[in-house]
Amino acid sequence: MPSPLNIGLIGAGRIGRVHAANLQRRIPDARVILVADPVEEAARAAADDFGIKFAVAEYQTVLQSPAVDAVVICSATHTHAAITMEAAAAGKHIFCEKPLDFDLAVIDQVLAAVKQAGVKLQMGFNRRFDANFARVRQAVTSGEIGTPRLMHIISRDPAPPPPAYIAVSGGMFLDMTIHDFDMARFLLGEEVTEVYAAAGVLVDPAIGAQGDVDSALITLKFASGAMGVIDNCRQAVYGYDQRVEILGSAGSASTGNIYPNAATISTAQAVRRDLPLNFFMERYTESYVTEMQAFVDAVRNDTPVPATGEDARAATALALAARVSFDTGKPVNMTR
Amino acid sequence: MPSPLNIGLIGAGRIGRVHAANLQRRIPDARVILVADPVEEAARAAADDFGIKFAVAEYQTVLQSPAVDAVVICSATHTHAAITMEAAAAGKHIFCEKPLDFDLAVIDQVLAAVKQAGVKLQMGFNRRFDANFARVRQAVTSGEIGTPRLMHIISRDPAPPPPAYIAVSGGMFLDMTIHDFDMARFLLGEEVTEVYAAAGVLVDPAIGAQGDVDSALITLKFASGAMGVIDNCRQAVYGYDQRVEILGSAGSASTGNIYPNAATISTAQAVRRDLPLNFFMERYTESYVTEMQAFVDAVRNDTPVPATGEDARAATALALAARVSFDTGKPVNMTR
Amino acid sequence: MPSPLNIGLIGAGRIGRVHAANLQRRIPDARVILVADPVEEAARAAADDFGIKFAVAEYQTVLQSPAVDAVVICSATHTHAAITMEAAAAGKHIFCEKPLDFDLAVIDQVLAAVKQAGVKLQMGFNRRFDANFARVRQAVTSGEIGTPRLMHIISRDPAPPPPAYIAVSGGMFLDMTIHDFDMARFLLGEEVTEVYAAAGVLVDPAIGAQGDVDSALITLKFASGAMGVIDNCRQAVYGYDQRVEILGSAGSASTGNIYPNAATISTAQAVRRDLPLNFFMERYTESYVTEMQAFVDAVRNDTPVPATGEDARAATALALAARVSFDTGKPVNMTR
Amino acid sequence: MPSPLNIGLIGAGRIGRVHAANLQRRIPDARVILVADPVEEAARAAADDFGIKFAVAEYQTVLQSPAVDAVVICSATHTHAAITMEAAAAGKHIFCEKPLDFDLAVIDQVLAAVKQAGVKLQMGFNRRFDANFARVRQAVTSGEIGTPRLMHIISRDPAPPPPAYIAVSGGMFLDMTIHDFDMARFLLGEEVTEVYAAAGVLVDPAIGAQGDVDSALITLKFASGAMGVIDNCRQAVYGYDQRVEILGSAGSASTGNIYPNAATISTAQAVRRDLPLNFFMERYTESYVTEMQAFVDAVRNDTPVPATGEDARAATALALAARVSFDTGKPVNMTR
Repeated sequence: MPSPLNIGLIGAGRIGRVHAANLQRRIPDARVILVADPVEEAARAAADDFGIKFAVAEYQTVLQSPAVDAVVICSATHTHAAITMEAAAAGKHIFCEKPLDFDLAVIDQVLAAVKQAGVKLQMGFNRRFDANFARVRQAVTSGEIGTPRLMHIISRDPAPPPPAYIAVSGGMFLDMTIHDFDMARFLLGEEVTEVYAAAGVLVDPAIGAQGDVDSALITLKFASGAMGVIDNCRQAVYGYDQRVEILGSAGSASTGNIYPNAATISTAQAVRRDLPLNFFMERYTESYVTEMQAFVDAVRNDTPVPATGEDARAATALALAARVSFDTGKPVNMTR
Repeated sequence: MPSPLNIGLIGAGRIGRVHAANLQRRIPDARVILVADPVEEAARAAADDFGIKFAVAEYQTVLQSPAVDAVVICSATHTHAAITMEAAAAGKHIFCEKPLDFDLAVIDQVLAAVKQAGVKLQMGFNRRFDANFARVRQAVTSGEIGTPRLMHIISRDPAPPPPAYIAVSGGMFLDMTIHDFDMARFLLGEEVTEVYAAAGVLVDPAIGAQGDVDSALITLKFASGAMGVIDNCRQAVYGYDQRVEILGSAGSASTGNIYPNAATISTAQAVRRDLPLNFFMERYTESYVTEMQAFVDAVRNDTPVPATGEDARAATALALAARVSFDTGKPVNMTR
Repeated sequence: MPSPLNIGLIGAGRIGRVHAANLQRRIPDARVILVADPVEEAARAAADDFGIKFAVAEYQTVLQSPAVDAVVICSATHTHAAITMEAAAAGKHIFCEKPLDFDLAVIDQVLAAVKQAGVKLQMGFNRRFDANFARVRQAVTSGEIGTPRLMHIISRDPAPPPPAYIAVSGGMFLDMTIHDFDMARFLLGEEVTEVYAAAGVLVDPAIGAQGDVDSALITLKFASGAMGVIDNCRQAVYGYDQRVEILGSAGSASTGNIYPNAATISTAQAVRRDLPLNFFMERYTESYVTEMQAFVDAVRNDTPVPATGEDARAATALALAARVSFDTGKPVNMTR
Repeated sequence: MPSPLNIGLIGAGRIGRVHAANLQRRIPDARVILVADPVEEAARAAADDFGIKFAVAEYQTVLQSPAVDAVVICSATHTHAAITMEAAAAGKHIFCEKPLDFDLAVIDQVLAAVKQAGVKLQMGFNRRFDANFARVRQAVTSGEIGTPRLMHIISRDPAPPPPAYIAVSGGMFLDMTIHDFDMARFLLGEEVTEVYAAAGVLVDPAIGAQGDVDSALITLKFASGAMGVIDNCRQAVYGYDQRVEILGSAGSASTGNIYPNAATISTAQAVRRDLPLNFFMERYTESYVTEMQAFVDAVRNDTPVPATGEDARAATALALAARVSFDTGKPVNMTR
């Protein structure tokens, strides 16, 4: 396939613009030819900023365009499932931001539609493509650290989102931990058999008032017998804290945070360095490029995508189970 | 009290010799004047090596000696409770190696006897005195990191003990995790309200054959709402792995491992350093001196000991609860 | 100045393409409208790859184009001086890759021409814009570490260049150390008064056979009394080693190397991490963007450029003095 | 030699007490049987504190005692040479604190006397025995980093000594850098052929008023062509800064500072740790034990001592040359 992949972008908000920029500037074998956003002004701004030829309001225009090979869905969360099904029906390959949906039955419908259409569906689990986590995954797959036994995933936001966001987020497990559930499955390469969620409201009572939690330690058991814990908090005042560690039979692999510079300052008070990167888009900048390149490659070479709809379903199922565990105070078996 | 504290040492095995050496060489205001060991040869060797005047076989001789102000009990584990009670009855202050006993009812008896006798009882939770953990504790008590929210305790041995040891160890929770349960209470300065133990046999099936586990992730909930996880494994091939981390409302505090040197070697293959210290006696050398100095100070100044019999009881109760949790697959409430 | 700055690119080789990519993709208020390269095919390829309208063979076409506001000179080293003078005569603002020339008299001519023309001239000392070195500089200017006393600049290449490159490089001091001479002046913000170069051939006798050196420790004295040493080697097998450290009266600031990931692997052999970045273009990626943005800003806002022709002259003078010092075995006074 | 080595200690000041404590408590195959100090009270205090049988005022008593196998000379600096010669004449093996003398002719006399007497003389270059520097040395001798090319020795005191000390110190090169000259020869295992000292008064004008310097960068050339730089400063406000780094053909080895704990604190301001150890006796505690054990071993096994009188002479010669270099502003050739 010598010509670049023609992409239609659906949704020109914050993450849509990230993908637009990456596709236009850093991925030579793809180009965005059409962008849609219900706020047509947003579509037009993206078109101007990133050199996209056409800007429209209706996403259906994208799906109907014969020139479009694949769509990148960055629309509002509640529209992901419906647009994905329509895109599949239109024969477009699909990159969709997470989550697909909060309802497993809906997800199953979508996956069936995608399967029937024979198109590719890649989910936006960008952290899999982060060089740091990828290196830890490599330590597992290469045998460098032997058989995994225990895993820690630390995933803390610098500050809690506004109440309005909490209200529509689906709750911390579906909004925040979902990334970590996917990371857990990605790093170990196997399925979770049991979830136990210890959680609470330790950051802001307003979050609790909305029925949500803001801090959690979630224990996972895996098919092989390996175990892991996810540490979540909506607030880490020193910055965006994103680390993992795996203990295996032949060693351990861990990653630290990413810093704006490698400088150390020693004074009469302390030896110190600047805070780690604070913003997820800065922390994960490169992972967005790598995931999109992987999608383009998968479509052009007709190879499997590295983050599937089934992965999205599994992470969602774990998030829902975590909530059940929290509500009941008991572990939830995932194998029944 | 101008003259040094006169100490009778009961038990001249490995840890007994450590305390003897520290008391004779590094603690100026105390001296061991009498050592007892059923293997009289061991008592004599310790006496020779550390300049102790008298060596005997029967510990009763120590308890009956009017010159002895305090005893340091390093005898076989199953004798701790009985000797402690006898020592209390003899009016001796007591430093006792952990565990006091595996049976809470027995511990309660001992604590009652100690209380009645009005003597001091300090338990050998040496890790509290390690400079690294003490610094993390200080970060909590000083308010440096605000109110604690989430805690990780990583505690992994370099290699599993021999099967014969496993058989009499009381199981991993009572033998190994007990230190971490104490560390958890020490670091946060509050009580555990719930224990959930995910555990398994991932290192050596022979351990499982003895009914024990060798790997665990144990979730703790605390009275304040804070949560913590203890990570235990009987084998970390890279060495003795002893770390903690606390996330608080105003920051986090964590400690890394201790290394034999601070050298880094960079070659065409990797940037690397030598493995962390491998042996607990080397890793915790200084903590043994500090805990004994603290005991001597508490006796001489009639101030509270920093690791009490009640601490031993609490850690034992948590270890027993962890086993119940593992056996039932459910969290155990500690407040009933 | 609401419209973007129109730039003519002269030279479409490796570094020319870096600047083209950055100007077209990451600097919104500038655009390359014309590219020239004597190998017209290279000009055309750059035009195609980066969306530049016109590609020509003669750089004079660029200078004569009235639409061009500023030129970016990335041509062969020996042409820098001449093209810079012609560009100045044509009234174009100039960004020129280092070195301006190896001959101080020629540099003086160029600087006079630039001054007379009243155009801006920024030199490509990109390392000044690296976040790590910039942070150390900030530690000096902010007073964070007090008055500087001693400085170390470590600057080692992963592997020596081919003999053909050595032959036209001007020698290690003019080719490699020149960056470090500029860094030294940049970090301390003052002039060097004395240079002493200890140097030798420790990597490859073939380099010595060409009359050049491959390893050096160069001592600098500064006007304030501060002192510094530059450590250069054409080969560091573990990667591109770029570090600085400044000791001041109130503390010290230092930077480490940059790594492809933050992962640590612990095995039974060692605790290790992957090698630092190996290629200067990868190590300094962001500094090229920042320096070009700074140039564009300086032209658009008519503010001073942050790396001047005088800086280029000073670094060249130090490189020439280092060679004299090496040849004579004595320090060279820079104030006469 | 089954019985322990009998040692006579000459000088019961600060360092004498360190050696007394180590010999009595941590080195089983040696014992101090006699201590002498012109301040007899000091001798008596040491005898009491460390269990030494006899305390006297005259060092001659030690030399005349037939029971004494070896002497440890910790007397005032200006007496080292004379007492060493007398001790050699008395047939005693000798451990002597540095410096032997500031005058090379005197040193030569001492070395001749020692040689003629056939006794061992070990100099107190304790840093050779520090685990960190020893590991770097091992990286050289093992071939781990190939052939050394460039070396950095950073050696900074936390704070300058009082003026009275400066007055009798012999100057910074003889007092402070002498350790680093020895370290340089130790790490590379070869001789220095040229010294160039850039130095100045950057910490305290009072030091300059005494004709001394307080900061220096000293360049060394070695017989093999390798080069090194010593960085000295009388004041590093963040603590005792003692690091080395060697670049070799196959890699590099470096050591960092030693810290009181391994804790890291992250707050909304910075990621920081406590300052490195501040006091040389705390930083080098273990090296004093190791060097003394090495001396005892060398005497008991009749093997060469690991830090000889010739080493002391070489370091002194380098210190004197550094001063000449500083005074003349030129490198000093050490091979003539």
